Amino acid sequence: VPKVVYKRRVQFAETDGAGMVHFSMFFRYMEEAEHAVWRQAGLQIYQPKEEWSWPRISAHFDFKRPLKFEDEFEVHTEMASVTRSTIQWSHVVQRGDVVIGTGTVTAVYVKKLADGGIKSAEIPAAIVSQLRAVFSR
Amino acid sequence: VPKVVYKRRVQFAETDGAGMVHFSMFFRYMEEAEHAVWRQAGLQIYQPKEEWSWPRISAHFDFKRPLKFEDEFEVHTEMASVTRSTIQWSHVVQRGDVVIGTGTVTAVYVKKLADGGIKSAEIPAAIVSQLRAVFSR
Amino acid sequence: VPKVVYKRRVQFAETDGAGMVHFSMFFRYMEEAEHAVWRQAGLQIYQPKEEWSWPRISAHFDFKRPLKFEDEFEVHTEMASVTRSTIQWSHVVQRGDVVIGTGTVTAVYVKKLADGGIKSAEIPAAIVSQLRAVFSR
Amino acid sequence: VPKVVYKRRVQFAETDGAGMVHFSMFFRYMEEAEHAVWRQAGLQIYQPKEEWSWPRISAHFDFKRPLKFEDEFEVHTEMASVTRSTIQWSHVVQRGDVVIGTGTVTAVYVKKLADGGIKSAEIPAAIVSQLRAVFSR
Repeated sequence: VPKVVYKRRVQFAETDGAGMVHFSMFFRYMEEAEHAVWRQAGLQIYQPKEEWSWPRISAHFDFKRPLKFEDEFEVHTEMASVTRSTIQWSHVVQRGDVVIGTGTVTAVYVKKLADGGIKSAEIPAAIVSQLRAVFSR
Repeated sequence: VPKVVYKRRVQFAETDGAGMVHFSMFFRYMEEAEHAVWRQAGLQIYQPKEEWSWPRISAHFDFKRPLKFEDEFEVHTEMASVTRSTIQWSHVVQRGDVVIGTGTVTAVYVKKLADGGIKSAEIPAAIVSQLRAVFSR
Repeated sequence: VPKVVYKRRVQFAETDGAGMVHFSMFFRYMEEAEHAVWRQAGLQIYQPKEEWSWPRISAHFDFKRPLKFEDEFEVHTEMASVTRSTIQWSHVVQRGDVVIGTGTVTAVYVKKLADGGIKSAEIPAAIVSQLRAVFSR
Repeated sequence: VPKVVYKRRVQFAETDGAGMVHFSMFFRYMEEAEHAVWRQAGLQIYQPKEEWSWPRISAHFDFKRPLKFEDEFEVHTEMASVTRSTIQWSHVVQRGDVVIGTGTVTAVYVKKLADGGIKSAEIPAAIVSQLRAVFSR
């Protein structure tokens, strides 16, 4: 399965009193990796005045080993599944060959309604094809 | 099932450019609620020089509705399952009667090894009973 | 000088690898305390679709002693100075009688321009008087 | 004055409900830039079991313009002043040629005491010369 690799270093503010990266940070690392895919596709996942957005509906992470201050690591990302209005991203966080953890984040394409609410909508085909193209380079 | 309720208000720094609480924050809210249970049990989940700790091995959240700046909300927490060395905490985040989302966090009791590593260990019975007592008050 | 007191407990995610609250968190604590004053005044410092906002133009903190996980602390806040378009808030962070640190945050009242920019404007007198009233209760 | 440049991109979780980087984040950006200098000097500012550490005693930032999601920016860092036991770092955050803001962070070299406290100490000369060497490359 083709994956896109996002590289990062652990910053001090991301560690906690136990001397390792706080578990909530891995959800931010997964989001950063996903957003890097959007940029490589020439797309923006967020624009302040658009009628659409991509809220998350589900997120999961399994923690295998700790990351520590100054560790360099990679997030290996794939598009795990695409439905009419959702994309599930699958991520493996690695330090070299060592798997630190694995997770998924599912986002839904929504249109903003006049009453301030949102409603899921069909993802434009061009978006899916541009995202997929990143993985076949 | 008995639950413990933790009350909180959304702070501005917890919101993101989409005008709602960033999805990674819900993992922090679940942790805050769990730690409130430990305090009510008269226990500490973290002490800097102890030979044990409670790293997380798995975390999950399903997002139903957004939380926004200044929203007051509650986290309803229960001990979903206890094994020899793990506790799975289950959480419902609510704003009034509206369910914002639901999630679980699984923590493992470990002993610190001389080589800097960690190894899962049997949770002391007193810890489990003191935590359980919080839910039967 | 009259002060408003905001009470808080240190959460685990706010600590860093040195076992104390990360220094950047104190700027969030000061903001939380300021926003509590706005709420007590019956005002909102932020509304998503308003034509005004309150960006910060300067922030400072002097760190005297560390805060640690689970510490309960207070932020004692006063309106240090008010100009045509700015308010400088002054804060003392205390754990009991022990001063943890002191800081200031200056915010400017701005109008949003049609071109997406912002311009400082005269603070409505009613806002200043409602904020001041909180300190004379 | 020679400066070291640290490059970074704004991540979504760093923005707030006003659609710009939360003001507390600039203190993290300054710390990341300082730590990059330490790495380039072949030094570590933090080691978990060492007898010394570098807590911050003062931090300041003046905000000129906002940073937004996906903005690429640079932090230009210099050693502004060095005393017996402190280093004051001075930072300019820029997006291209546009100054976003300027700030300083002062850190103190301390030894950990047997009673759990800390005491300021003379910075080893080798540390200062290795840090200075980064700026003369």
